[in-house]
Amino acid sequence: MSTRRNFLLQTALGFGALAVPGLSATAGTIVKKGETEAGPLLPVGMAGYTFAKFNIDQAIEMLNRINVRNLSLKDIHLPINSTPGQIREVTEKIANAGIKIYAVGVIYMKTQTEIDNAFAYAKRVGVPLIVGVPTPELLDYTEQKVKEYNIKIAIHNHGPEDKLYPGPKSVYDLIRNRDARMGICLDIGHAMRAGEEPAQAVLNYRTRLFDLHIKDVTAAAKDGKATEIGRGVIDFGKLTTNLLKIRYPGICAIEYEKDMNDPLVGIAESVGYFRGVSREVSRKGA
Amino acid sequence: MSTRRNFLLQTALGFGALAVPGLSATAGTIVKKGETEAGPLLPVGMAGYTFAKFNIDQAIEMLNRINVRNLSLKDIHLPINSTPGQIREVTEKIANAGIKIYAVGVIYMKTQTEIDNAFAYAKRVGVPLIVGVPTPELLDYTEQKVKEYNIKIAIHNHGPEDKLYPGPKSVYDLIRNRDARMGICLDIGHAMRAGEEPAQAVLNYRTRLFDLHIKDVTAAAKDGKATEIGRGVIDFGKLTTNLLKIRYPGICAIEYEKDMNDPLVGIAESVGYFRGVSREVSRKGA
Repeated sequence: MSTRRNFLLQTALGFGALAVPGLSATAGTIVKKGETEAGPLLPVGMAGYTFAKFNIDQAIEMLNRINVRNLSLKDIHLPINSTPGQIREVTEKIANAGIKIYAVGVIYMKTQTEIDNAFAYAKRVGVPLIVGVPTPELLDYTEQKVKEYNIKIAIHNHGPEDKLYPGPKSVYDLIRNRDARMGICLDIGHAMRAGEEPAQAVLNYRTRLFDLHIKDVTAAAKDGKATEIGRGVIDFGKLTTNLLKIRYPGICAIEYEKDMNDPLVGIAESVGYFRGVSREVSRKGA
Repeated sequence: MSTRRNFLLQTALGFGALAVPGLSATAGTIVKKGETEAGPLLPVGMAGYTFAKFNIDQAIEMLNRINVRNLSLKDIHLPINSTPGQIREVTEKIANAGIKIYAVGVIYMKTQTEIDNAFAYAKRVGVPLIVGVPTPELLDYTEQKVKEYNIKIAIHNHGPEDKLYPGPKSVYDLIRNRDARMGICLDIGHAMRAGEEPAQAVLNYRTRLFDLHIKDVTAAAKDGKATEIGRGVIDFGKLTTNLLKIRYPGICAIEYEKDMNDPLVGIAESVGYFRGVSREVSRKGA
């Protein structure tokens, strides 16, 4: 036990000792290869839910460690009823770390009031995109708000156990004839479990693909479990090939849902794998 | 500060809580995609020096976390003068974790006695390969021992600051006409800093390429610093393409020399990136 205890202390101390230089070093100076002035080929981001068990300072520390510069901000880290002062505090903290909030969400919306609040919140935060789950009967109302605010919505699919949006097709079928600012946040893990192959979904729904939740799962079945990217059943070569093919203009947001009390190691492996695959695929395409 | 403290505790606790299931789960059951019955395309391993600041239990815990199953054992974790009982204890511990010791090293050998000790040690540990640095004037004697023990030696290059073996060419030129069991452990980071492009070195020294130390560096110059794989200047697509081209029969041992007090996050990113690139390159070749 004493060995274990020492190890944990060492790990903790090591992390702490490195966190501060890491923070200052990454705020603008370290640029990921392939993410240079010309812009990244497939920019990596993070879905805020990944950091559900941590506060925003800790989330920023982890983002810096793995050099990820795009965040879909989750209400866990900035509640929807935040005051302007609270919003300013959190968004400035994130901006000062060199991280861009490109969306807010996932936000669940079951009433008109919740939709009102979500759009008002997105506007106050200053983002052009909500990743959300408005219940289907509220899509007309959601569309009104999209027009009113000129803020896009990317509706997020869950898996086969979800009654509303099990896969991306269930989203697409309900928005395909609506305002062009209504689209999909394709959660590739849930899509895979719902029987929709993510790379094919990228092609099928290309015109409405606004955001991605990228993860891997152990099986293409309801009981598939979240795992490190590259260890599961999703074909990331095919996925990134198709993303490049459609010139996907959004962020590739990694959402890591395993080891949520201690996610950084699995996040790092996942981000590394995704960057490695997408870099090779980009080169092949070039 | 209290936030930082809580975060570190959480990280430490999370790690501890997950370490035990991780250990049991990975001991034989979780197999990396592409590393199936047919054998891995480019098997990933770890150079033991990566864990210089940790004991062998901690090293095993980290190897399990990132699912790496090949280790070049460093004398830090099993001293060269270990008793048979000590050797058994450490090697059984590693074997029980489902990890294979494929080599010992890096071992520095400046005298005949140190060469004697290294070969006797490798034999007692039961490995077919020493990764070592025998001084050039001892290469005749080293060759005698290679023949006597039938144990291969992979001579490791350092960088431009090293008088003995700055790059792989300095090794190759001295062993090319010697026993076929004398070869190179190509340290790609040091090679890059010494002005030898690693992917080209793979082709040039293919007949004598026994082992690899895989890392990335920030610059192809003496003062280039160790960094996470994928963040530096080494072309891993080209490297893995050439490794597949020569049908490299060895292990791709990652050696991570940044954040040595807290290496696991950077190791994970590095292993992820290398696996991602090599998987895509394998697919392209297929």
